Amino acid sequence: MAPMRIPYDQLFATLLQILVMLGFEEQRARLCARLVADASRDGVHSHGLHRFPQFVRMIESGIIVVDAQPQLVASFGSLERWDGNSGPGNLNAWHSMERAISISRQQGIGCVALANTNHWMRGGSYGWQAADAGVIGICWTNTLPNLPPWGASDPRLGNNPLILAVPRANGHVVLDMALSQFSYGALASYRMRGEQLPVAGGFDAAGNLTRDPAAIEASKRPLPIGYWKGSGLALLLDMVGALLSGGRATHQITADPERETQISQLFIAIDPASLNPSGAPSTIADEIIAHLHSASSAAGEKLRYPGQRILQIRKQSLAQGVLVDPAIWRTVQSLSQST
Amino acid sequence: MAPMRIPYDQLFATLLQILVMLGFEEQRARLCARLVADASRDGVHSHGLHRFPQFVRMIESGIIVVDAQPQLVASFGSLERWDGNSGPGNLNAWHSMERAISISRQQGIGCVALANTNHWMRGGSYGWQAADAGVIGICWTNTLPNLPPWGASDPRLGNNPLILAVPRANGHVVLDMALSQFSYGALASYRMRGEQLPVAGGFDAAGNLTRDPAAIEASKRPLPIGYWKGSGLALLLDMVGALLSGGRATHQITADPERETQISQLFIAIDPASLNPSGAPSTIADEIIAHLHSASSAAGEKLRYPGQRILQIRKQSLAQGVLVDPAIWRTVQSLSQST
Repeated sequence: MAPMRIPYDQLFATLLQILVMLGFEEQRARLCARLVADASRDGVHSHGLHRFPQFVRMIESGIIVVDAQPQLVASFGSLERWDGNSGPGNLNAWHSMERAISISRQQGIGCVALANTNHWMRGGSYGWQAADAGVIGICWTNTLPNLPPWGASDPRLGNNPLILAVPRANGHVVLDMALSQFSYGALASYRMRGEQLPVAGGFDAAGNLTRDPAAIEASKRPLPIGYWKGSGLALLLDMVGALLSGGRATHQITADPERETQISQLFIAIDPASLNPSGAPSTIADEIIAHLHSASSAAGEKLRYPGQRILQIRKQSLAQGVLVDPAIWRTVQSLSQST
Repeated sequence: MAPMRIPYDQLFATLLQILVMLGFEEQRARLCARLVADASRDGVHSHGLHRFPQFVRMIESGIIVVDAQPQLVASFGSLERWDGNSGPGNLNAWHSMERAISISRQQGIGCVALANTNHWMRGGSYGWQAADAGVIGICWTNTLPNLPPWGASDPRLGNNPLILAVPRANGHVVLDMALSQFSYGALASYRMRGEQLPVAGGFDAAGNLTRDPAAIEASKRPLPIGYWKGSGLALLLDMVGALLSGGRATHQITADPERETQISQLFIAIDPASLNPSGAPSTIADEIIAHLHSASSAAGEKLRYPGQRILQIRKQSLAQGVLVDPAIWRTVQSLSQST
């Protein structure tokens, strides 16, 4: 079915109504609805509206506790440990980055480790959050086991999305990447379009690298980025997150996506202005982007920096409506009537 | 020529003698010699003894200033900015991680941005340094332009090595990786052995992905890890390092390896014990490693964690001597007699 566009305000209002009916306090419902709607607005459909029905199911099954608030467990200087108390993952993550930003205003850098939380949906949200506040944001999450370590065939690592964000008046630079070369969502999209992957994305059943998305879905052997390198990075991000949060590591998280919970996350904010309180802001980020844009790509197009395309999609979504899958939109609308 | 082994003490003493003759103050000469010898001892030859002749040439050409010390430029809470004053890169980096560790003892987390420094040689040194001190270490450096952004053919990014380290009584977990899939040193090694790369490492002159190391050396188009993902990560690491240090970004660094200087680095230390002052240390890192080791690899071997193999090489080097290239060892010995 062809995708359709709906006005952002209608999308937001529908989500808000459902969340309030599910028992969210008004302000928390507004933030949660905004984070979901913004992800779709920015073109990150898989972690916006399209994930919302699962979010509702996980509330109904008791995995996500609607009114649970994060709780400070320990703190020392610029480092804090919080317990997410099984609350909504996006609200817990937003709160954690807010704390990290707040500490960075006082200390230059702030670090918040969060245990016992749920899927944060779109990881880039918390990079944009930091950049909108004028600070550098670095954060990552562990996940259920969905990625074989390099050299093994069973999924023992998470694809552990990593986000880095740098604020910039002319458009924040925000990298939001899982450590698998292609997510299962991306593999499914290629398969449904009948396309091969642009580069090898995993192994087939015979253990050969392949560009066939269906073969990778069947073998459950997607590739980490950079083969052994991304495999090592995924292990380290899991280890640092679980160690500092006191929470669970990937191998302790159930492999059922509908029951994925008690995950661990880390949020770091660094305030560049703290080192330069009276001077003019640095222009180095603009210079780096200008230099990148001066390169011609093989296709003759200008190169894009991470986050650049989102600004174009966002503008189009606000002008013409947010692109949604009609079936999922109908599902969500029915939730707003039946819940 | 077949590699040979020399006793660690002899290697260290030879390097120390040369550094003292070059004008290094005794304690700085000892630390510098140890860092170079330790890299070779741990099997990281390209950034140990094998890079030492270039290190000496760069001192003689005035790029590296022997007695220059890093200088505090600005500080705010747990964040500091230092100027490396063109001093030896490994001493500047060691000092910066020491500062970050020291801040982490007081504040939980410490962050030091370093501008105007030189090549830090083996990046993993500063991960081991943090882990030996019982803290988590994260650091990275920018480099001269040596990596095309995804979609372009000219090298506008650095391969910007990234290090993450977690302390562990049974062997630290230390990831030390450049963001190119294969370094130029690795490409040369494969070519000289007459081997193809295990996976595609870059483009040939016709713009096709290839496993032929010579074709990539010729095209100067190595791949970033994860294609577009590592390309984005390299850009962000450069941006964060240059922004916080106030130093140069990759595009401002001369592309001649013999004149590569004024680079920017970032060092973060996080003290896990600060959140848990009276409790038993967490065992989560051991549990993650045990879980990894319980997987069988395709080849029937146990999987290794980042840093594991180094402990074996180190043991062998200390027992049987450090492996060196005879020609480079003769070059270094001649320096100790002629300088």
